[in-house]
Amino acid sequence: MITSSSNAQIKKVQQILKKAKTRREEGLFAVEGVKMFREAPAERIEKVYVSESFSAKEECGEVLAEKGLDGPGGQKVEIVEDRVFKSLSDTVTPQGVLCLIRMQNRRLEGLLKTKGTPLLMILEDLQDPGNLGTIIRTGEGAGVTGVILSRTSVDVYNPKVIRSTMGSIYRMPVLYVDSIAEEVLPLLKEREIRTYAAHLKGKHTYDRENYEKGTAFFIGNEGNGLTDELTAQADTLIRIPMEGSVESLNAAMASGILMYEASRQRRNIN
Amino acid sequence: MITSSSNAQIKKVQQILKKAKTRREEGLFAVEGVKMFREAPAERIEKVYVSESFSAKEECGEVLAEKGLDGPGGQKVEIVEDRVFKSLSDTVTPQGVLCLIRMQNRRLEGLLKTKGTPLLMILEDLQDPGNLGTIIRTGEGAGVTGVILSRTSVDVYNPKVIRSTMGSIYRMPVLYVDSIAEEVLPLLKEREIRTYAAHLKGKHTYDRENYEKGTAFFIGNEGNGLTDELTAQADTLIRIPMEGSVESLNAAMASGILMYEASRQRRNIN
Repeated sequence: MITSSSNAQIKKVQQILKKAKTRREEGLFAVEGVKMFREAPAERIEKVYVSESFSAKEECGEVLAEKGLDGPGGQKVEIVEDRVFKSLSDTVTPQGVLCLIRMQNRRLEGLLKTKGTPLLMILEDLQDPGNLGTIIRTGEGAGVTGVILSRTSVDVYNPKVIRSTMGSIYRMPVLYVDSIAEEVLPLLKEREIRTYAAHLKGKHTYDRENYEKGTAFFIGNEGNGLTDELTAQADTLIRIPMEGSVESLNAAMASGILMYEASRQRRNIN
Repeated sequence: MITSSSNAQIKKVQQILKKAKTRREEGLFAVEGVKMFREAPAERIEKVYVSESFSAKEECGEVLAEKGLDGPGGQKVEIVEDRVFKSLSDTVTPQGVLCLIRMQNRRLEGLLKTKGTPLLMILEDLQDPGNLGTIIRTGEGAGVTGVILSRTSVDVYNPKVIRSTMGSIYRMPVLYVDSIAEEVLPLLKEREIRTYAAHLKGKHTYDRENYEKGTAFFIGNEGNGLTDELTAQADTLIRIPMEGSVESLNAAMASGILMYEASRQRRNIN
């Protein structure tokens, strides 16, 4: 049992929770809570930390067994004193399980190879963790096949992002790129995936366009929108009409409305 | 100039920021920041507090003049020492203006009297301030004519709700009721406003229904959804289809998708 906050493993987990750089270097991210543990793909679980009091519960053995793990004391499972476990959690009453999951290395070619028609979200400099998490969760529901982010965006393995994905983090292909224009757009053109920039100055109302074929939506930074550079590269500028005095919609909301419009069109042709 | 945190006005503003009960008793709510002040309806401004350093700026006189106020020292304007002003703000770098706005007393009959076709959001026990703010902001954009909440829901004048409405708080008619079933539904029936409950077990896909006539959407609590009681009262149960392993959408996102579907249908018949 780990009984000290200065234990090397505990220190590493804290760094993984806090720093995107450490997560990248280790190729690991941390998820907390029973529900997130149960949804985790067993083959990507690197290590499980259970609190002393959770380890004493029947539920602990059950959820570990679901993943083919030997229970507390097994090779991949560490028991942590409750007081120390608390230092790993940002919830007031931690559920007592936290695990490290191996990241998947995606390549753009792989992400574009999907069973269905591609539906991509391309996010430029998105900053809010809740927005990214909500886009991934809603995107899975709408049938999005992948999310591509500019390197300056919030880290998808930030604990706040992970929490707001409600498990979709395990299933949605996500890729960071240095340059959307140089790395991504040529491949989209080659594969005849049409690009639509959500823009306040868009001349086309979003629901008058056809998203039945390969589609990619560009969504920009929360405060500043898309850069002029990326906007200029889109095939079509689209606008979500707004009544009243509303100047813009929240980035996740705008994404959700576009993704579900694509989903609606694709369902209704079948 | 107010120089003490124990000043009676400062204490009152702090209570208004913190407690829904005080807000109700006073009939006042507080908004912070230059943008929110500039959007405030002048006739509902009760009092303006400006920080000492903001009062020294040209911008301060300009924004006060826009509202027909005499500038720092005028009857409705109080200057507050920076240190004391900070105790009124939850932002790290307050912009230096906070004002008290009079609530509007709505009655259901008034809320149903709209220029256009009614489009109502009926929220049962909604708890998250960000969700409510986002529903109000997105709702204004989608042409929602009013928001009705069960008394157990989060207070719309909670500073976090206000902030996430981005100004729509001033313009969206909002009403709390003790019983949606008893107070609201009979009037909706009388006016032939159709009710749709967003429900995971809904048999009807949301985008196959017609929202061109008077429409009300029921949205339930974030964790538990709608009560069986209210669900049973809806004319139609609708479902937003979800691919993958997504079990539900965020309440604000589900609302946004429904509201913009109604908006889409209504725009496309014109």
